[in-house]
Amino acid sequence: MSDPKFRRLALIGIGLIGSSIAHAARREGLAEEIVISTRSEQTLRRAEELGLGDSYHLDAAEAVNGADLVILCVPVGASEAVAKWIAPALSPGAIVTDVGSTKASVVRQMAPHLPEGVHFIPGHPIAGTEHSGPDAGFAELFRNRWCILTPVPGTDPEALERLSAFWRACGSMVDTMDAEHHDLVLAIVSHVPHIIAYNIVGTADDLETVTKSEVIKYSASGFRDFTRLAASDPTMWRDVCLHNKDAILEMLSRFSEDLSALQRAVRWGDGDALFELFTRTRGIRRSIVEAGQETDAPNFGRDVKR
Amino acid sequence: MSDPKFRRLALIGIGLIGSSIAHAARREGLAEEIVISTRSEQTLRRAEELGLGDSYHLDAAEAVNGADLVILCVPVGASEAVAKWIAPALSPGAIVTDVGSTKASVVRQMAPHLPEGVHFIPGHPIAGTEHSGPDAGFAELFRNRWCILTPVPGTDPEALERLSAFWRACGSMVDTMDAEHHDLVLAIVSHVPHIIAYNIVGTADDLETVTKSEVIKYSASGFRDFTRLAASDPTMWRDVCLHNKDAILEMLSRFSEDLSALQRAVRWGDGDALFELFTRTRGIRRSIVEAGQETDAPNFGRDVKR
Repeated sequence: MSDPKFRRLALIGIGLIGSSIAHAARREGLAEEIVISTRSEQTLRRAEELGLGDSYHLDAAEAVNGADLVILCVPVGASEAVAKWIAPALSPGAIVTDVGSTKASVVRQMAPHLPEGVHFIPGHPIAGTEHSGPDAGFAELFRNRWCILTPVPGTDPEALERLSAFWRACGSMVDTMDAEHHDLVLAIVSHVPHIIAYNIVGTADDLETVTKSEVIKYSASGFRDFTRLAASDPTMWRDVCLHNKDAILEMLSRFSEDLSALQRAVRWGDGDALFELFTRTRGIRRSIVEAGQETDAPNFGRDVKR
Repeated sequence: MSDPKFRRLALIGIGLIGSSIAHAARREGLAEEIVISTRSEQTLRRAEELGLGDSYHLDAAEAVNGADLVILCVPVGASEAVAKWIAPALSPGAIVTDVGSTKASVVRQMAPHLPEGVHFIPGHPIAGTEHSGPDAGFAELFRNRWCILTPVPGTDPEALERLSAFWRACGSMVDTMDAEHHDLVLAIVSHVPHIIAYNIVGTADDLETVTKSEVIKYSASGFRDFTRLAASDPTMWRDVCLHNKDAILEMLSRFSEDLSALQRAVRWGDGDALFELFTRTRGIRRSIVEAGQETDAPNFGRDVKR
């Protein structure tokens, strides 16, 4: 096992993921020094109030100075600008990674700007909540969750192993795959679910025949489940949509095609087709629960006192 | 306030909702006697093992004999058959209600068969979990949830008030509206959300480029939220689709129309349109949390230890 400890950890961006890494790294002693940078003065001040790091910088280049691990925790659309900014200040041998929800675009945005001698290993911890900002983070966020790394060919195995060890020490299990496959997988397990959730909440919000107050009152019958995803950070999700367009459009059209077939079954009263689908889908949840990625408590355990 | 107590409560069907009513009625002393009927011998035996009632009957007509409150807790597609079955055995003055997720169809199926002198008041407690069967019930299911009654014109106000008192004693808040409006409201807050959830789980299950194992491993990034609804009882949901067709098709086409617009925004990189929608939807969740219909804990509180 490689040593998961770094000398100087620089977090560029200190929202939900950045602040959760800060908490986890602190608790597990993964960095002698945690350096925090964000472009918003207000957020930086808040991070300082929360004591998330050891030093605080509006200048990202200043923050990465001397860091042996640099983690970009910014919306994916900001990756290129940050890469350009920090490139001249990166130390040789430093590992540069990120936590963005799309990977091919991040590679395209960052790789051309990073200097030789720096280990660029894109990453994506599959963890989050609908809350955002530096107050939303907590050390346990990554526990028992997967973190996907998408190393480019020729990546230094030792650097890859050090970064993997870091994520494992944060509580994650680590997988590697190529960036394009990551983007396809995430399109169906994350991006399209968020888009659909945002969409139905929008549809409900627009109705003339059903009032907003009715939607709210009776939401426990299913609708409220979608509002969690639809309360996620708008900037982050706008960028995901803009930066994983092809995979999202591919998965969205499969979804729509299937929905048309289902709609047709409803229209023509095809009870057998409905029953077949509604039965098949139960098994997937069972597998997710068995894989330790979901609770078996009814209603996610959120409001049930047995 | 009317007396919520009945002499003899007959529950026809003893799945999640029926067994939850049995628990709540027992705990709150809402019936001197609880009579249980279901057409499956195995389920009936299980209900008896669980001690859910005072007597157990395969014959629904036998069960309603002498009952002053009869609650049908069956899939909506079974309403007509049950109504025909119990009609000759109903006592004058009895209140007959149901818990079905669609109401206009239940009225059409049941009303013609019920004798004069019986108070038929359709109902729908907006509560549930993804679990089903007699083991799934618990007394707290209705606490702080709405129950919608859809009385037909000419309903006896006293009977309506007694039934309302019963539901309030089970922990519910009670609303009344007409059956058609109920069906429209539920189409958007419940039926379409379930259909969409079933659909995306089906889409993910069918992919060739992403393995089932990947879908399961990385499901915490959004997908798993949908699997809860998609694990709901297939018979119940088949019947809902067959019995609220018009409202569901109306809401589904609005959803699809909006999704096409969103898909177009993704294709053409319209970041402003995406950001606008993704911002607007946050407010609805806030309102639902404020209305006490949802937890504010991140990830529904299901796997977060802070």
